[in-house]
Order: sequence, then C-alpha cells, then structure tokens
Amino acid sequence: MRAGRHFLQIPGPTNVPDRVLRAIAQPTIDHRGPDFAELALDVLRRIKPVFGTSGPVVIYPSSGTGAWEAALVNTLSPGDHVLAFETGHFATLWRDMAEGLGLVVDFVPGDWRHGVDPAVVAERLAADTRHRIAAVMVVHNETSTGVTSRVPEIRAAIDRADHPALLLVDTISSLGSIDYRHDEWGVDVTISCSQKGLMLPPGLGFNAISEKALAAAEGARLPKSYWNWAPFLEANERGYYPYTPPTNLLYGLREALALLESEGLPAVFARHDRHAAATRAAVRGWGLEVLCADEREHSSALTAVLLDEEHDANKVRQIILDRFDMSLGAGLGKVSGRVFRIGHLGDFNDLTLAGTLSGVQMGLELAGVPVDPGGIRAALEVLRA
Amino acid sequence: MRAGRHFLQIPGPTNVPDRVLRAIAQPTIDHRGPDFAELALDVLRRIKPVFGTSGPVVIYPSSGTGAWEAALVNTLSPGDHVLAFETGHFATLWRDMAEGLGLVVDFVPGDWRHGVDPAVVAERLAADTRHRIAAVMVVHNETSTGVTSRVPEIRAAIDRADHPALLLVDTISSLGSIDYRHDEWGVDVTISCSQKGLMLPPGLGFNAISEKALAAAEGARLPKSYWNWAPFLEANERGYYPYTPPTNLLYGLREALALLESEGLPAVFARHDRHAAATRAAVRGWGLEVLCADEREHSSALTAVLLDEEHDANKVRQIILDRFDMSLGAGLGKVSGRVFRIGHLGDFNDLTLAGTLSGVQMGLELAGVPVDPGGIRAALEVLRA
Amino acid sequence: MRAGRHFLQIPGPTNVPDRVLRAIAQPTIDHRGPDFAELALDVLRRIKPVFGTSGPVVIYPSSGTGAWEAALVNTLSPGDHVLAFETGHFATLWRDMAEGLGLVVDFVPGDWRHGVDPAVVAERLAADTRHRIAAVMVVHNETSTGVTSRVPEIRAAIDRADHPALLLVDTISSLGSIDYRHDEWGVDVTISCSQKGLMLPPGLGFNAISEKALAAAEGARLPKSYWNWAPFLEANERGYYPYTPPTNLLYGLREALALLESEGLPAVFARHDRHAAATRAAVRGWGLEVLCADEREHSSALTAVLLDEEHDANKVRQIILDRFDMSLGAGLGKVSGRVFRIGHLGDFNDLTLAGTLSGVQMGLELAGVPVDPGGIRAALEVLRA
Amino acid sequence: MRAGRHFLQIPGPTNVPDRVLRAIAQPTIDHRGPDFAELALDVLRRIKPVFGTSGPVVIYPSSGTGAWEAALVNTLSPGDHVLAFETGHFATLWRDMAEGLGLVVDFVPGDWRHGVDPAVVAERLAADTRHRIAAVMVVHNETSTGVTSRVPEIRAAIDRADHPALLLVDTISSLGSIDYRHDEWGVDVTISCSQKGLMLPPGLGFNAISEKALAAAEGARLPKSYWNWAPFLEANERGYYPYTPPTNLLYGLREALALLESEGLPAVFARHDRHAAATRAAVRGWGLEVLCADEREHSSALTAVLLDEEHDANKVRQIILDRFDMSLGAGLGKVSGRVFRIGHLGDFNDLTLAGTLSGVQMGLELAGVPVDPGGIRAALEVLRA
Repeated sequence: MRAGRHFLQIPGPTNVPDRVLRAIAQPTIDHRGPDFAELALDVLRRIKPVFGTSGPVVIYPSSGTGAWEAALVNTLSPGDHVLAFETGHFATLWRDMAEGLGLVVDFVPGDWRHGVDPAVVAERLAADTRHRIAAVMVVHNETSTGVTSRVPEIRAAIDRADHPALLLVDTISSLGSIDYRHDEWGVDVTISCSQKGLMLPPGLGFNAISEKALAAAEGARLPKSYWNWAPFLEANERGYYPYTPPTNLLYGLREALALLESEGLPAVFARHDRHAAATRAAVRGWGLEVLCADEREHSSALTAVLLDEEHDANKVRQIILDRFDMSLGAGLGKVSGRVFRIGHLGDFNDLTLAGTLSGVQMGLELAGVPVDPGGIRAALEVLRA
Repeated sequence: MRAGRHFLQIPGPTNVPDRVLRAIAQPTIDHRGPDFAELALDVLRRIKPVFGTSGPVVIYPSSGTGAWEAALVNTLSPGDHVLAFETGHFATLWRDMAEGLGLVVDFVPGDWRHGVDPAVVAERLAADTRHRIAAVMVVHNETSTGVTSRVPEIRAAIDRADHPALLLVDTISSLGSIDYRHDEWGVDVTISCSQKGLMLPPGLGFNAISEKALAAAEGARLPKSYWNWAPFLEANERGYYPYTPPTNLLYGLREALALLESEGLPAVFARHDRHAAATRAAVRGWGLEVLCADEREHSSALTAVLLDEEHDANKVRQIILDRFDMSLGAGLGKVSGRVFRIGHLGDFNDLTLAGTLSGVQMGLELAGVPVDPGGIRAALEVLRA
Repeated sequence: MRAGRHFLQIPGPTNVPDRVLRAIAQPTIDHRGPDFAELALDVLRRIKPVFGTSGPVVIYPSSGTGAWEAALVNTLSPGDHVLAFETGHFATLWRDMAEGLGLVVDFVPGDWRHGVDPAVVAERLAADTRHRIAAVMVVHNETSTGVTSRVPEIRAAIDRADHPALLLVDTISSLGSIDYRHDEWGVDVTISCSQKGLMLPPGLGFNAISEKALAAAEGARLPKSYWNWAPFLEANERGYYPYTPPTNLLYGLREALALLESEGLPAVFARHDRHAAATRAAVRGWGLEVLCADEREHSSALTAVLLDEEHDANKVRQIILDRFDMSLGAGLGKVSGRVFRIGHLGDFNDLTLAGTLSGVQMGLELAGVPVDPGGIRAALEVLRA
Repeated sequence: MRAGRHFLQIPGPTNVPDRVLRAIAQPTIDHRGPDFAELALDVLRRIKPVFGTSGPVVIYPSSGTGAWEAALVNTLSPGDHVLAFETGHFATLWRDMAEGLGLVVDFVPGDWRHGVDPAVVAERLAADTRHRIAAVMVVHNETSTGVTSRVPEIRAAIDRADHPALLLVDTISSLGSIDYRHDEWGVDVTISCSQKGLMLPPGLGFNAISEKALAAAEGARLPKSYWNWAPFLEANERGYYPYTPPTNLLYGLREALALLESEGLPAVFARHDRHAAATRAAVRGWGLEVLCADEREHSSALTAVLLDEEHDANKVRQIILDRFDMSLGAGLGKVSGRVFRIGHLGDFNDLTLAGTLSGVQMGLELAGVPVDPGGIRAALEVLRA
C-alpha cells in the first residue's frame, strides 16, 4: 500500500471516476424486471450520440476483443476477403482473429508510425473489380502507436472506388476521447469497449451498426451465438437482453454518460486535444521523438515516445513505476523496448497531466536518458495558454 | 425509491454482499502490471476448490451463456453429435446454441419435472456403438425448474457404456450453492458464471477443464477466437490474460471466495439444503405443489412452485413485487404462467428466507390462491430445528 | 463473516440504506469552498420540514448526547430549575447531564411504562407560581421503553398553566419515524441525531430552535463554546460552519433527505405505524406483554417486550444473535434482563419486519419462553391488510 | 462535474484514500455488540503509537475544536490561568475558547511567522513563582502559517523552570504527518482530529492523556458532560462508549491506521519532509517567500506562501480553482489576502505534489505574479534526488 493515488497512465484501462465506481457498487437487480428495462433503454439511447449514430448499438458483456469478433461474425461468411492495414499491434491482432475465423485477409504492411493510407485503400479497392473484398477493417486510434487514422478520408476513398465493401472501424481507444461520427462517416460497424474514453472498468464491448451492416448480417454465415446481433436487437427493443446482462457495468455506463453529457462531447474532445498537445510539447522539449510520424495523425488519447537504441523503454517504465507509482504503457510487438506510451485519455485533467509528465521527466533522468529538463515547462505553457 | 431493501429472490442474479460490491468499486489497475498478476493468480488458484478440481479454470469476461459457447467451440467440430436432455428452459436454450453452431443434437424429451435420467444416458450411449456422440450435455441444476440432475449417476452410466463421449456440465445455478465435484465426478468441462452462488454481479463466465477436454481441444475445429482456451491457459500461467481482463469483477471474485472460504463449502451447502427444505415445508404447508417431482432431485438453490390452472403465477409475482418489493422468478417457456420460482441461493440467511416466505404467503393470499397460512410456521420449524 | 445480511433491529443505529452509505463515501471537499456551501445550505433548508419548523436547525458533528448538552447550555444558566420526567433510561441520563452541568432538576418519578403525564406537567407548573422552572425536558419517544409521550398535550398543559418555561424535546428516536411538529407544537428546542429515523450512521446532532429559545440564549450563562448556537447561526447563513463540518455525513444526510422526500413524510409515518401495529400483533399473538402500558403511547419506532421473571431477556437476545444473526435492543437500567426491544424504524419494509418477527419467535422458542407460534401469522395479517 | 480528480491541497481536510472511504461505507453495527467492541479495542490500541503514547486516547464524535474544549474542561477550573502563544489563527481561536470557558489567558503576542519561543516559555514560567499558571497551551503545527513549534524544547523550558503547569498540545495538522511523541516529550494532553494526517473525513476528535493530566482531571471544576474523560475511560476498557459512538468513522480509522502501519511512521514522516522541502524549493525557485521565518520551524504538512502587497493571494487561489480545479488554503486572520497555503499532508505522493506545484506555478503566472518558471524544476530536482 503506497501513499497517494496510483497514476494509471496506460492508454486504458483509464482512471475510473469515483462516482462511476460507486454507481457500479449498486446492488444488482432483476434483469427481467421493470427497473432493469428502464436502465437498459436509457443507456442504449444515450450511448448513440457518443458513437455519432442514430442506429442501434449492441452492448455485450465482454472485452473489446469480443466486440471485434462480433463485428466479423455478424457480417461475414467463411472465406470472405477483407482488407486490413498493419498500423500497429492491435491491427495485427485483429488480422489474426479474422484469419482464425476463416476469413482471407489482405494485410497492407505498415511501419507502425502512420495510420491507414487512404490512397492505398482507394488503390486496393479499385483493383478489386470483382468486389471480392467484403469489408475494410480500420483501427481508428492505434493504441500501440498513438496514431489516429483519418476515417473520413478512408470513407471517401471507398466511395471514390465505388466499392460495396463494409467499413468496420475499431474505436476502442478513441471513443469518447477523439471526435468520431459513425453515421456521418459512413461506418458500417463501429467497435468499442468500456475501459478507455468511457471511463469504466473493462467488461463491456460495443457494436454500432449501420443499415448496410444489418442487411449484410442477413446473409453472413460465420457461426455465431453469443455475438449474434439479431436476438439483441429484438430483446433490446423492450430494454431486455438475450442473456444475463452486465447490470452493474451498465449502472456505471449510465453514470459515465452523465459525465460526458455534463462536460459536452466537444469540450471532451478539446480537452483531449489540449492534453495531447501539451504532452507532445514535453516530449519535444525533452529532445525526444514522438512515434507518430504524420502531423495529421497524432492521437489525442495517448502519445508513444520513441527512445534511441541505447535506452530501454521498459527500464524507464520500471523506474517510474517503482519510484513514482505510475504505470505507463509498454511498447508492444515490433516496438517492444523502444517505445513507452503515455495515456492521457478518459477522466483526466491538467494537473494530473502535469504530474504525469513530471514523473516521466524524472524517470527518464533517473534512467540516464539524456533529456532537457525544460520539457515540463513547455507542457505547462501549453496548459496555461 | 422504496423503503428498506429489495428482496431479490429470483434464482440469480443473487444478492451481492456489500463487501463484494465494495471490492468491485476499487480502482481499476494496469492489467499488465504486477498487482494484476497477483490478483489473477490468486483467484485462479482459489476458484479451483469451488469446482472441486485441481485442473485449470478459465474465467471469461462474459455471461454464463458465453461459457456455454466456450465449452462447445473448444471441444467439438462442425457436424459432431451431442446428446442433450430436455430438463427445462435452459437445457433447451443450450441445445439451440449447439445446433446454431453446427452440431447435431440428440435431444431427449422431458417433462420439466425431472432431471437427466441416468438410465437413458446409459441406453443412448450403449446404442451408439460407433461412438458418434462426441459429448453429453447436462444441466446440473435447471434454473427454470428447480431440479438437480444426479451427475455422479450420469457419470457412472457413461462409464458403464464404456463410451468416450465428453461430459459437459452446466453448473450455472449450482456452483457454490450445491455440492459439486468436477474431478471426482469425471466431468470434462464444467460451465458456470458469477451471478448465482458466487454472489457476484453478472459478467464472468467459467470453464473448468479436464485433461481429456484439453486433449479434445487439440482436434476441435469449430471456429473460435474470444473463447479459445489455448491463449488463456498460456497467459494465465503468469497471471495475465490474452485480452483485457474483467479486473473489477475479479476483485469481487477474490472477496466472494474469501466469504466462501470463511464459511466453508460444506457449511455453505448445508445452509442451502436447510433453506430449500424450509421452503418446501412452506410450499407443502400452503397446500401447494413443488414442480420437481423426484425427491432425489430437489434443488437446494431454488424452488419452483406449481399453481393450478385457475391461478396465474405472474399475477402472484406482480402482486408480490408491488406490495412487498420482492422479485421472484417467472415460469419460463413451457411452464410460463403456471410456475413461480423462489431463489434461495447465494448470500442468504434464515431471517431473509423467513421474510421471503412471508412475502410469498401474503402474496398468494392477496392473489386469491387458496393457501393454508400455516405454511410460514412449517418453514420456521425447519429453520429453528 | 456470516452469510446474508445482519438484521440490525436495535432501536438505532438503524439500517443505513446503501445509497446513503455510498453518498458518505464521496471524497471530502474544501469546507470553505463553494461546493460545500451549496451542500450545507441545501441540507439546512431541507431538514426543516422533517422537524416541522421554519426556523433554524443547527447540525453538530456529535452524537445525540451532544445535542442534549447543546440544548441545555444554550438556553440555561447555572442553578436554573428544570422539570423532567422519569420515563425511562434516556430521560434519566438526560437528567444526570442536567445536574452535572449545574442545573436543579425536579425529576418526576415514573414506572417506565408510561410517557410524561400532561396532568402532572400542568400541576407542577401551576405550583411554580414564581416561575423558577426555566425549562421542561421531555423525551418524545423513550428509546428504552417504546413509549411515546404526547407532546401536544404537554404543550397544552404548559399553556394552561400560563408558564413561561421553555419546552425542550428529545426526538432522538422519533424524528423521521413518528409524526413531529416543532413549530405547531410550540417546542423551543428539539434535539435529535442522525442514526435513527434519519437513516445515517451516528455522528450528527441536531437542535431545532424557536424564537423564544433564541431569546433565552441571549441571557444563558452556562459556559459553552463547541455547542454555542450563535456562531453556527451566523456561519450557516452563508453555508459555512464555525469549525470543520462533518462533510461526509452531510453528504449522507442529503441523500437520506431525498429518500424521505421521495416517500413523503406522511407515508413514512404511516409505514412506521403499520409496522408497529404488526409487531404488537405478534407480541400479543405470542401471549407476551408489550412494556408500554398506555394505548395512546405506543411507539411506532420500537416495541419493548416484557418477559416474566422466569425468563432472561438477554439470553433470548443472545440466542437470536447467535442463531439468526439479529441484534435486538437490551433492556436498560431498571428493566435490564426483563425486556428486549425490537427496533422497527428507519429504512425498513414489510418483509424485513416479517423476517425480524420470525427470528424473535424462533428465538423465544429456543430460549424456552412459552409462546404461541401463531404470533407471526397475526403480524402477517396486519401487514397483508 | 469536471473531468479528472479535484486537487484538494488545503491543509486539511486532506485527500481521503479510496480504501478509507470504502471502509466508512460499511454498514453500521450494534454499538453494544461484540463486533463493535472488537473494533473499538482495536483502534484504541493501534492509535497509541501514532501519538507516541502508551496511555489512554479518547476518541470523540466531534471536530478537532471539540477536542480542544475537552482538553480544557477536563483539566482546568474556572479562573485558572493558562499561558498561550499567538503563533497564528488557530492559536488565537483556542485562546478565545479558553477565555469563553472562563479561563484567564496570558497570551504572548507573535508575528505569525515563528513558533512558540521556548525562551519565552521559560521566562514566563520562571516569573510565575506562585505557580498560578495551570497549563501551557501550544499549537504544534500552526495550520494557518505553516510553522511547527519545537515541543521538546518547550518541554525542556518548562522543566528548567521546574514549573508544575500541564502541557497541552494541539497536533491537529501534524499528527500522522510530522514526528510527534506524547510520552517522550512529556505532553499532558495531546489534541487532534481525523481529517488531516489521519486521512479521514472530519468527525473524530482525539485527546491523548498523561497520568498527570488524569490526576489533574480529578480536581478540575469546569462543567463537562459530553467531553468528560471519566466515563470514556471506563467504557473504553471493554470496547464500548459512554454514548453512541461514531461507528463508521471508526471503520475508516481502522483502515487509515493499517495504511500508516503499512508505510511505517518513520517513512510517513520522511515523505512529508521531502514533500515540504520540494515545495519550499519551488517557492524559492519562483522567487517568492515562505511565511515561516525560522529554518528550524518549517512545517512538513503545509507551506504558506507570502505575496507582496501588490498581489491578492485570494485572486491567485480563485484562478487556480477555476482553471485547474485545485483548492488551496486561504490566508486567515491577520494574513488574509497576503498568504495562500499549500497542503502537502496526508495521503499524498510525488506526482500529485508535482501536479500541485505545476498548478500553483501556472496560477501565479495567470494572476500576474512575477515568478521564475524554473520553480517547478527545482521541486522536481528535490523529488528525483
């Protein structure tokens, strides 16, 4: 037991607000009774603006990985071709899942420092004259790299190619933190989960579903039961679930939605943008490099910091955990040991960011990484502005 | 907001102890850090005695329905034959799932008042000389009927037939309430969930897995990703998860296990047996009929009460909810409107049972069901003994 | 750790509703900041109707005993005469306090089975032609006996005597449970606390103060600092405190007030009346005697049960605690060992009362007290009506 | 509802750890039952090392102000002379209380930048050859100024004068944060409360009592009831209270004591010393002045920062509250508007301090106070060392 609060600055799970934790601690109720129906109808309605949709959103008792699977098995059939992009670790894992489920994945290689290239989307789809590609899989915000793909431009590329592929977008680490618009951007299935921008513990997976995706679901032949949208959409009509619902996390979701509504989504996004800008100011102030290589694609949810080969990012993280009781994200997969990730999403404010960046600066110094101690000052200048 | 505590006497979700709710309200931590590993290793170890196993138990972020699916997709291949029994509503739903996943189900009809007949098991397996039946699916405690199947006798029947079929057992409403022994009874996959005898909110699904099931998993060809045991067993070795774990419910599980350990499993089972006996004494004292028709198969977790055709069980439930703020279980499927179910499992004691049965008695009277008001006294005599 | 919820059926502290406990668990805030002022102004306003007053109510960080002291030291001077009544243990303790503080107490003896006799009040005041009696001290609901004094008749007696004495009333175990009207009944200081009808943990003491009491305070010369009304009334104007306020209990008070407002005070009182009637029906059904000897004075907050000399009430209580995990109130002072007390106040409902009375009945039987087991049925008939 | 956690950096109430808040949210129990006795005996024993005493500690349901009053009324008689020192606002308030209770206070004037001067203590006592001074009242850590008086030197001064006066010490903002030794330093009554170093909400007042104080209590004639030690010491023997105890705060105290024991008091004090040093480094780095004028007397619990006359400290505080959601302490009494106070006590760690000082730096800049932005860097250097 260490004094003070742990700084949970991984890019999710994020710091769960006290009031959300207290909401989750309410007694579980009868999931077939009227109070549950009221709760479910309420959150199913209020979650829609967060996705930017007027269509249905299914909320699973699952992690976000389950919501990935749900998106695939509800819309695709064995042997279907899908187009995916190696933007980082999670895009790679989603690719692996798709292959494991029997899909054929066209996986466009990437350097983990850029998002999905809309030009490549356009090119691949244009080349697919027989329309064998059933879906395009995009990770909106790559949690492993801090790179945010430009979904509207990807949508435009699909449209330019006049291709019927579904657009499946993973917003696991962007939803509720970075501006996102399921309907306006023509996304067919938006995948998300509870433990990032929604400020909840893990345990809820989400699918926002377009009309086109619903139509595709009718013919999709991947086997499914737990993830099947159809019984959800039917039961949700009356505020019920096809099986036992995650009641206590739904209590938490109702509270988290109240928090987002109270601050207002535009203010939430602006806050994340400011914090990301301050973080990049610190990183550059220290003389270090941000992993994301395209100014248009900086994530407002997390910042991955790239160290040179002489310094072990995991050693830096370990020092920071031991000395300052702060968890940072490790470099995953290809960038393991080279990168550490600072999460600045969810329930977060200026002074907690200042504490976070102070801890990173001191940890870098203690680890012997040469840094300019003016980094923290550069961040404060952004925050003060 | 009504005065006093709601009586949640459905057969699950059950009343979550305050200390479990408070445990769940702890701040979420880094699921890749050392504190999480300690938590996970702890609960993965301490859950084993509850299943009566020394083998692995996988804990999913899911409802119990997901754990059903996990048991099937990890052990079976498309087109496999399975033997199942119509013991009630949930056995029927599990059958539906198996069929939906592409299995061929031999579904033995039942009257919803008896458990699985071991003689029929023996007979069917003996007839399957080519060993086409890959698995026998049994619901240990039928939550829809209050009938507990005799798993050891079923095991013996399989053994007598010298049949290699796997034995898959659903303990969703029995685990932690009714004596159960995965290893001793030779069960291959035991399915369970969090919101019944484990006294947690919904959100965790469990599979306890035998050596034989692990071997079967190697050749199982149903597609799977989220439910795949292999990456779980590998990651769990070091206390991690293959994807984001349900951290806060695991906090709750740790606390719930401490409660079970403190009382001691034999005492827990004896308590449930006493409460079930007292409940049946009340039902018979009222002059009503228990749905379960075999004295060897009465459930210690819930009691389904059968009304005659002149009285609507749902009307009784509605009166009890409105007047006495108590939720009872509805009759499901075939027995809808004819039956109501009294849950007496989980975190429960004598006086809460006395209050529960008092509420049922008053509700029956108010609904015009002719009952002998000595029912409550008969129950108190059992409790006092 | 025992299974199920403890039955806390002492006449206070009462069962604190979960939502009040969660409210108390909110982070403490700056007691000189705007959020605190908003909280304090809110509860100071909303507490008034509970006392039936439009005047000021002071809320101390203290137990109810502190509120007793506050009432005395703010209104009286060393050597002042006060009239008090031996209605039970707490009236006696309050008398002791008054004497300890240097007041001269005229203590009218009583048999602990009746409330304050308005005729005696009239007589004593009439005899006090020189108006030496500065205050009349009345315990509205004697927590040790379950007898409720008739304050309006006492008021009328004072008025008939045309006597200027202040009327000080202890509502520690009646406020928020039994109809009470500070203004209408002409009470000068009403004393109360948090842990009974207000459904909070212990830690708040209350004084509701009439204009006449405020005027008396100007000349009162008992030394005082912590309890001094004047700095409270001044600081409370702007929502602040003269010293560090009990912030977290005030969070709880706000929530408890919301519960009372939601049910409505008349409904709250009617509920307590029904539960008290059902309890008396049980006691009489068992063939036992209620301590309160005047039908006009039965408490709706608790019922004291009188055993004959052959049976030890504390043994009954001990059996009930050991076997059924229920706490009942002991006989105090003069009636120690002869009486046990059933609390049925605060956050309470029909089925919890049924469980409570079931436990009492079983405990009496186990203790060898001859009782008619029809007692519980008699109670259920009242509850069902 | 603002995003992220509020920074409560007033010098108390301090940030209550989550686990303490959850402990407080446990259901209230029977204060006359065995579980309560176990709780009370446990905390009454474990609180002793925090005071550095092997003698009794009384825990009141009250604020710290009540504990002040308790120390006076238990040991003194009307007209007694006491020696007190104007070290700041709280010393002045305590003086006012003493006078209000009828004591004669010799109040040594001070400049609010120094602690009690042991030489003056020696001089005044030496001059009091008739031993009219019954007690010396010292505020250990002046919460209004951030100055810590040197109690051992004060004790030595009393001893040198060979004077029998009692030594009464207020440790309201030092206990559990700054090294303190009731027995070793020969203190007679140590006064404290819950909401500072003990990391609890307000609501508990403490008196640690020497043998000499107990002896003095026998002859003390100030009237007392609520604060009377005698019935406490008697009831506490068996783990009970003379009136209804503050059960839920005692739950919290048990948890807070576990936290202090887990870290270890020497580590707790060293942590506070480091944080205070880092804070002073920041203040001096900004080019500002610390109010405390004696290097031997810097408080490790809070730092008061003195602004020049051109800048309004309250404006700085308001900007910081509005922009950065941080509460700082106002200048009180004589230094109102000239001083703001940074609390760095209780449940606190390096990164929260870094965030705090970052917020102060930005707030000063926004308020137009000329500061060197290197202040934060100077603090980080101390923290990193």
